[in-house]
Parts: sequence; C-alpha cells; structure tokens
Amino acid sequence: MNDRFLKACRREPTDATPIWMMRQAGRYMPEYRAIRAKHSMLEICKSPELACEVTLQPLVLGVDAAILFADLLLPLEPMGAPFEFTAGEGPVVHDPIRDPMQVEALRVIQPEEGLGYVLDAIRMIRRELDGKVPLIGFAGAPFTLASYLIEGGKSAHFVRTKRMMYGDPRTWTRLMSKLAEVVRRFLRAQIDAGAQAVQLFDSWIGQLGPDDYREYVLPHVRYILRDIEQTGVPVIHFGTGTSELLGLQREAGGTVLGVDWRTPLDIGWQRIGHDVAVQGNLDPTVLFAPRPVIEHAASRVLELAGGRPGHIFNLGHGILPETPVDAVKGLVDFVHETSAAQREQAKATGA
Amino acid sequence: MNDRFLKACRREPTDATPIWMMRQAGRYMPEYRAIRAKHSMLEICKSPELACEVTLQPLVLGVDAAILFADLLLPLEPMGAPFEFTAGEGPVVHDPIRDPMQVEALRVIQPEEGLGYVLDAIRMIRRELDGKVPLIGFAGAPFTLASYLIEGGKSAHFVRTKRMMYGDPRTWTRLMSKLAEVVRRFLRAQIDAGAQAVQLFDSWIGQLGPDDYREYVLPHVRYILRDIEQTGVPVIHFGTGTSELLGLQREAGGTVLGVDWRTPLDIGWQRIGHDVAVQGNLDPTVLFAPRPVIEHAASRVLELAGGRPGHIFNLGHGILPETPVDAVKGLVDFVHETSAAQREQAKATGA
Repeated sequence: MNDRFLKACRREPTDATPIWMMRQAGRYMPEYRAIRAKHSMLEICKSPELACEVTLQPLVLGVDAAILFADLLLPLEPMGAPFEFTAGEGPVVHDPIRDPMQVEALRVIQPEEGLGYVLDAIRMIRRELDGKVPLIGFAGAPFTLASYLIEGGKSAHFVRTKRMMYGDPRTWTRLMSKLAEVVRRFLRAQIDAGAQAVQLFDSWIGQLGPDDYREYVLPHVRYILRDIEQTGVPVIHFGTGTSELLGLQREAGGTVLGVDWRTPLDIGWQRIGHDVAVQGNLDPTVLFAPRPVIEHAASRVLELAGGRPGHIFNLGHGILPETPVDAVKGLVDFVHETSAAQREQAKATGA
Repeated sequence: MNDRFLKACRREPTDATPIWMMRQAGRYMPEYRAIRAKHSMLEICKSPELACEVTLQPLVLGVDAAILFADLLLPLEPMGAPFEFTAGEGPVVHDPIRDPMQVEALRVIQPEEGLGYVLDAIRMIRRELDGKVPLIGFAGAPFTLASYLIEGGKSAHFVRTKRMMYGDPRTWTRLMSKLAEVVRRFLRAQIDAGAQAVQLFDSWIGQLGPDDYREYVLPHVRYILRDIEQTGVPVIHFGTGTSELLGLQREAGGTVLGVDWRTPLDIGWQRIGHDVAVQGNLDPTVLFAPRPVIEHAASRVLELAGGRPGHIFNLGHGILPETPVDAVKGLVDFVHETSAAQREQAKATGA
C-alpha cells in the first residue's frame, strides 16, 4: 500500500513527496475522452461502473492518490435544483435560486436520497483499488455551491450572489446553512462508504475579501469541517485566489490547506501555520511548457516547501483539458525522484 | 479647481479623501446608454466629441477626477491587430498573435499614427473641464494587452499566453518590448496632450505568481513607468488579484499603487510602503447592496487607510454595468463627508 499521501496529511515523514492532481481523471487523457465520446458527464457520474473506471485511469501516471470522479454540483439535483452541463458554457442551473421562497423549498437531503450512486461508486472504487493508493472523496463548499445556484452557472463578478449576501443576509444564511448541512452529511457518507480523505472545494471563494469571508462564509465552513475532523479522516480545505484568506480558512478548519500558485508555498504555509499540512501549488498552465520549464517550476515548489513533512504536491487548480499527458507523467516522476533525492541528501548531511 | 486627487497622488493633505471610479463613464449611467444606443463603443472612442461628452457625464456625481473615455485595446488596431467588440463576448481580436512572424509584423507606432483621436479627445476634454477637476489618461499594460492579442479575447486560464511566455521566451520578450514601447509613447503623448495623471491598467496580472511576474513582466512595466515618472505627472499602477505582487509592482514603479478589494487596504499599503500613495478598494458589487451596507464597507476602507495622506478612494475594479446610479452618487458623498469629518475630528483631538 502506498500511504505517502495519508502520511503527508498527518505531517509524517515520507520517502518522497506525494503527488496527485485535481481533475487528474479528465479530458486530457485519451482513455477518458473515449468514455466521454459515448457518455455525458452526468451519465458517468451516475454510473458507479463508469465513475470507477474513470477514477482509476490516471493511476497509470503514478499518482499517490485516486480522487473520486464526480462533480461539485451533484447534490443540487436532489436538493431540488436540477442542472445540466452545456457544451462550452459549463453547468447551467435550470431555475436559479434568487428569492427566500426558493431557498425555503430546497431540500436538506440525506445523501442516500439521490446521491447513493456516489456512495456506490466509492465502495466499488475501494474494492478495485484494493489498497494500492488511498481514495479521496470530495464536495463543493457552500459559497461555491451557492454561487452556482444563484447565478445559474459560472460567473465573472458574482453580482447576484453578493447581492443576496449583502442585501438579504437572512436568506443568505438560510441557504448557506442548508448547503452546509447537505455537504456535511455528504462528506460523512463518503467517509462511511470508504473515502480515506476528503477535499472541500471552495473554488470561487477568492472573490471575497477577508471581512466578507469572516462574516458570510466562515461559520458555515467551520460547521462542516469541525464535524468531519471528528472522523479522524483527513480533510483538505481548498480554494483559489486565497492569499488573504488563508488564515481565516485555517480558522474554519482542515487537516490540509490548499494553496494556489499565486501564493508562494513558503508564504502560504507560514500564513496557515506549520502545524497543518499544505497542498499545492504548481500553476496548471506550466504543464503546457517545455520540460525544463516544468522541472524548474516544480523544483521551486519543492524548494519553498522546504523538505518539511506535510507537503502534498498538486497543481494550484484543476488540470486543464488540453494538457499533454506526457507532461503530467513527467511531473509525477520528477516530483517523486527529486523529493526522494532531497531526503537522501538531507540524511547524508545530517540536516 | 478641485485638486484633491492630484494632492493625494503626491501624498499631500487634503480636506477630504478624493474619489473617482474606474469605468465611472459607463453603462450604469442613463446618459451614457443614450449615446451607446446610437453609437458603438469604437465610434465613441474614435469621436473626440462623443468621447469628451461621455467623459464628462459622471462629473454630476461629484467625483474628484475625470478619466478619459477610451479602451485598453485601442493601440492594437494601428499596431496591426484589429479587433471588435461583440455583444456579450467582449473584445475579439480578428487574427490572434501566436507566432514569431506575427509578433515581428506588429508595428511599434507613434501615437499620432492611428491614435490621434485619443489625443484630440484629451485636448477637447481639458478645454471643456476648464480646470474643474483633473483629467486622468490611461493605457493597458503589456501583459494585459499581450493576453488579449494572444488569446484573441477574454480568457479564463490564459493558456496560450502562458504557453508563449514559458515556451518561447524570445518571442514573448519581443512582443512585450513592442507593447511596452507603444504604451510608453502613448502615455507620454497623453500627458503632452494634457492628461494630468495617467493610469496603467494591468488588469489580468493577478493570474501570475510572483516568480513569473518578476521574470516575464516586471522589466517591461518598469521600462514604461521609469520613463513616465520623469514627466512629474502622477502614474497610477493598477492590477487585480495582486495580493502577492504588490511589492514587485512597487518595484516596477508608480506614484500610486492600486489595490483591489481582496487585499485589505492597510495590508496592501504596508506591502507597497507608505512612501507611495494608494488607490482603492471597495468591492464593486457592494454598490448593489442596501445603503447601510455600502456605508459600512466604505467606512471600513477609510478606517484601514488610517487617515494617512495619499489615499485615493476607488473601487477595486471597474463599476459594473447594472450598478444603481444612486448608490454611486451616495458613495461619493459619503466618502467626502466621512473623510472630512474624520479630519476635523483628528484636528480637534490634536491627533
């Protein structure tokens, strides 16, 4: 069993720095595109067999963890806000949530109601993995889910979301509380089904300044993370554009904090404190660069992590669809080899 | 003459904190929409009379400076990369620049060749303003212009831009050098035509981590700003998502550094140093909130500025199209009244 990833979550020493990548099962892999040619995103998510197959595909690249193939928005459908993925435009929520009545009508589901297929996929993946690498489950965080619900899809400025947040804080709190409870239950259920770590994706949280995060978001994230931390299973708390939020995110909770490429890893780790683990933070676009540039940038990440136990190598955000597979494979090998050599050298010099 | 803005650029005491807003001449104003109903964006930019009329419209709101109505991309057309504004999609560059030959073919123009209409507009606006408030000119910074040129329009991940940056640094440097020289000349020409301050918009620079900024961008921005600083006219150096870049942006130059709403103003000002002025930093979406929320957020910005001379109040990015005009007018009055009262109080308490 490769337990580098789980050890790093607990800040225990490892033989090499573990690496996995957000969206490592995705369009950049020909094996994935072959399945997508025959099935929609939601079909793959809803079929445990297909989700399992896709989840396992990137293991050939040598990553130290598998992450469940699913989508952040899956809980919205059983809550009463169905959506679809449109080509090019991303997710579209059919009936965006913009008034108190609509928020009232959202159902605070149990994961077994309408998300059982995710839990089935987790059980199947665990069987198939047979202990080779750990399995990470995940869910979207309340702000990020709320923004999709309110905007009806992706957004540039999050005007409608913030309009509710600032203008109708009662409805906002009600919405965030409902989402937080669904997410908490969903992560618990994923852990019960066999997820050995979970990641909370607050992908768009970097749209908020610290005052707004503290007031409108932090309590809801803390509600989730405090509970999940009780399970003893590591929780990765992730966002992008979070330079100024890292301290508050730490306050909200998490065994591992994600840092994106805009924040140098040493500065990010200082801000969250060295008593938690850190995940990151190569710019995903670096994988389009020539090999020496990738290796230089990856070395820099390892250098800023300082050889301290508790670093999980990852990109700063998901792998982009056109990324060359060879570059991904090359990165995994490079991180393993370079970090292992660093440890040998540190041992030899008695550092 | 209202010289609050120019005094604040020089960090001299003022009777109240000056305020102006990026895109203060824009779609949120009915007077502007009336003109847009009859003319395209580019028609307004290219007609000194229309550009002048639109530039003056927001003065009714009580702002302390006028900013030339124009677009960041205007220099691209005479350089040999024509573009248009498409409804909904924003700017589209007809023939995106992606190889060395195309970069070679770009013309390093003199502003009089093809941008004379901007200079005519500046002269006309200065006459019409008749000293009431100062006029700010502006240009896009090389990275932001390069990203539009290479991507062909707006971009989520800037993959093609960074691919050139990482993969073909010679071509990248050639492109950035050409853009920097055009921008330098353009800002100089705007100053010669009568602009009393200029702003360099590096709107998308927050996509880069500090290492990349230092290597691929800073020298080109410094080239521009060092030259413009020689004129004695204040230069505002602006970007968004710049938490980790502020120190390097300061190094690159500027009389005033822009800070967006993700970085609390006190932290931002510390990072750039109190020996330059600072501009910002209300979240533009706050203007959609009820009045007490706007006033609370604006008070917080003034509080974090600490009453120190050298703060220019602004939004963290441009006014959004649907913003209520009353909210903008209310903000201007509130900032003037509150900051004037703070100064009186400080005087009374001998602080």
